[in-house]
Amino acid sequence: MQLKWVEGGVCAPKGFVANGMLAGIKKNSKKDDVALIFSDTVCSAAGVFTQNKVTAEPVKLTRSRCREGHAQAIFINSGNANACTGAQGAKNAQRMSDAAVKALNDFAPSPVPINKDDVLIASTGVIGVQLPIEKIEKITSDLVHGLSKDGNTKARVAIMTTDTKFKECAVEFELDGKKVHIGTMAKGSGMIHINMGTMIASVTTDCCISSQMLDKALRESVAGTYNCVSVDGDTSTNDSMMILANGQAQNSEIITTGKNYELFLEALNAVNTKMARKIAADGEGAEHLIECTVTGASTVQSARSLAKSVISSSLVKAAFFGKDANWGRILCALGYSGELFTPEKTSVTFSNSKGSEKVFDHGVPLNFDEDKASIILNEKEIKILVEMEDGKATGTAWGCDLTYNYVKINGDYRT
Amino acid sequence: MQLKWVEGGVCAPKGFVANGMLAGIKKNSKKDDVALIFSDTVCSAAGVFTQNKVTAEPVKLTRSRCREGHAQAIFINSGNANACTGAQGAKNAQRMSDAAVKALNDFAPSPVPINKDDVLIASTGVIGVQLPIEKIEKITSDLVHGLSKDGNTKARVAIMTTDTKFKECAVEFELDGKKVHIGTMAKGSGMIHINMGTMIASVTTDCCISSQMLDKALRESVAGTYNCVSVDGDTSTNDSMMILANGQAQNSEIITTGKNYELFLEALNAVNTKMARKIAADGEGAEHLIECTVTGASTVQSARSLAKSVISSSLVKAAFFGKDANWGRILCALGYSGELFTPEKTSVTFSNSKGSEKVFDHGVPLNFDEDKASIILNEKEIKILVEMEDGKATGTAWGCDLTYNYVKINGDYRT
Repeated sequence: MQLKWVEGGVCAPKGFVANGMLAGIKKNSKKDDVALIFSDTVCSAAGVFTQNKVTAEPVKLTRSRCREGHAQAIFINSGNANACTGAQGAKNAQRMSDAAVKALNDFAPSPVPINKDDVLIASTGVIGVQLPIEKIEKITSDLVHGLSKDGNTKARVAIMTTDTKFKECAVEFELDGKKVHIGTMAKGSGMIHINMGTMIASVTTDCCISSQMLDKALRESVAGTYNCVSVDGDTSTNDSMMILANGQAQNSEIITTGKNYELFLEALNAVNTKMARKIAADGEGAEHLIECTVTGASTVQSARSLAKSVISSSLVKAAFFGKDANWGRILCALGYSGELFTPEKTSVTFSNSKGSEKVFDHGVPLNFDEDKASIILNEKEIKILVEMEDGKATGTAWGCDLTYNYVKINGDYRT
Repeated sequence: MQLKWVEGGVCAPKGFVANGMLAGIKKNSKKDDVALIFSDTVCSAAGVFTQNKVTAEPVKLTRSRCREGHAQAIFINSGNANACTGAQGAKNAQRMSDAAVKALNDFAPSPVPINKDDVLIASTGVIGVQLPIEKIEKITSDLVHGLSKDGNTKARVAIMTTDTKFKECAVEFELDGKKVHIGTMAKGSGMIHINMGTMIASVTTDCCISSQMLDKALRESVAGTYNCVSVDGDTSTNDSMMILANGQAQNSEIITTGKNYELFLEALNAVNTKMARKIAADGEGAEHLIECTVTGASTVQSARSLAKSVISSSLVKAAFFGKDANWGRILCALGYSGELFTPEKTSVTFSNSKGSEKVFDHGVPLNFDEDKASIILNEKEIKILVEMEDGKATGTAWGCDLTYNYVKINGDYRT
């Protein structure tokens, strides 16, 4: 398939506008902290959410709305997670949604009134502090008035917390001779682990696809992309990934698996993989992006699980920070992954644009070139290839190194 | 039961001697690196080992010997893990054992010759480098000649790697009116996680107990002590815990569960709990010992699992380093533990000798005293009490904070 990377992020698909503004949720912060994405027609909607038993209030609300399969807007705040906030938190989540519905209908940017349950909301930031909902309510009308086709540039920044870079991308591809777009933005830097590799991601598309197929594609794609990212092993109370599809590309609706479903999934995978790499590279304090690919595993699930175990290991992560070719820790992490494999038929190679160096071959340590390894490990991106001979499946996971700055950022996050 | 803490470590029980020496396994290191523990009569023996699929060669050998239920000596080296070393590594593990058997029989410190399979061996240190076995063979005879009743002071240091403190203790208690002793030493500072909370621990006792009951007591005790310690989430290739019981206390042999078994288990738990705390407090780079106790959980297993999740969280660990009362991360870690509980009936309190401060009460954040919390968090030892109302079970886990020094130590461990 021809995939063309395009500008515009969540506004790249037809019919979508966005905006970002400062509500002042976090004291003394001057960065925009509320973002709104809006489609001028109702969309198929799907979402995947944290598996944490302690679930933030906006997640509870949005999860039940995604089950209905339709929505028209995504309203996100940073600076406060609205988690562990009890009954008042639930009330505030509802008020946040209500404020968006009211402002959207007052200003009427869509031809028909927006349904009161068609806003998906998400919050990210500190846990256990009540959301200053009045501040959000106060600016929602202005936020709606400012919705625009280039508002993605404001929205993508407004959702950031400890992120050092905004994260967005968009693709264009063809279905039935019609141009279809998928756009996305995400935030995520710490408290990131494999069971939902980000705190909040929004995907928009003008593809015409049923909510059932949209849900299926989202789950399938997330398993091999966002769910293969780890920064620190902590899955948050707020992880949310939402997708809206408004059908304005006018391809014939995807209502079953088949060629068009596969094409859509391929494009979605491309977008999500790019975002997964961006999130790992911008992991809190990260100096290196670490990509681990396991080949020759017995199943795809096993390959992914082995790769995730490697990039999740604190010792592996600290070794990459120290630019130390300590491959023994990689073997160790493979060994405690819980997956079956044959250590005697396992090999390990480090590589990137600077070269390739095999350090372990079929269970035996190699007398490798430390200087060549050091040149590879000095680069920003490092690939670990783990070759096994237990099957034919491949899996990749993305992570980052563990640095002084990770400790610093998280030692004084709240205060 | 009356438990009396005594001096002597692994040499406290009757009939045990020990020694430590420098073999020069790690280049340029002047610290003793081989340790030997010896009982002048054959012992009941048991062991628990790493569940890592990548298992060091000495672990393979020692595990099979522990299954036989008898042994007479424990021979340990630091500086090299003899892991990921293939067929040559297996040969070297056997040579290490053979060297001890030969030296012990040449010098004949025991009335009858030691059986060639009655030496348990263990190695700890860097992974993937061949063991310099000749250096060990060269000094084994001197090591045996130097065995003595106060050799625990040398042995406990010889097994250390990145440990900053030696770890040993011993207790005395009574069974059938006889004085019984349990002594132990352990090393462990990094690559430590809940499925075997240390790399190497040796326990000696003069209790008369069958190998079946010894094995049962060891497994039962480890589940609530060593297996509840986490420093960094990495389970090593070399984790080994071995226990020798020579029966010289002359109590009537424990061959079944019952009062005497329970008394022995209680003493073993006391010893192992003390060691678990020592290991967590000396976690690589650690500045704080964190003890998390969960009460009111549905089962003991669930309580332990919840407590382990808290002390394993990188974000919780970084917050304690920063002396930040960020209790939201504790809730978050409880939530992704995989255990069922009721967040709305959960409360969290920080405490230690400086005071006690409840921060979260039945699902609702408290407006707690930040100054009082800060005084508590400035201490070396911090207790987190998590009160639930889902049942009556209690569990405790031990960990440490995540510091710049952890990253530093592990960034340049190999080089």
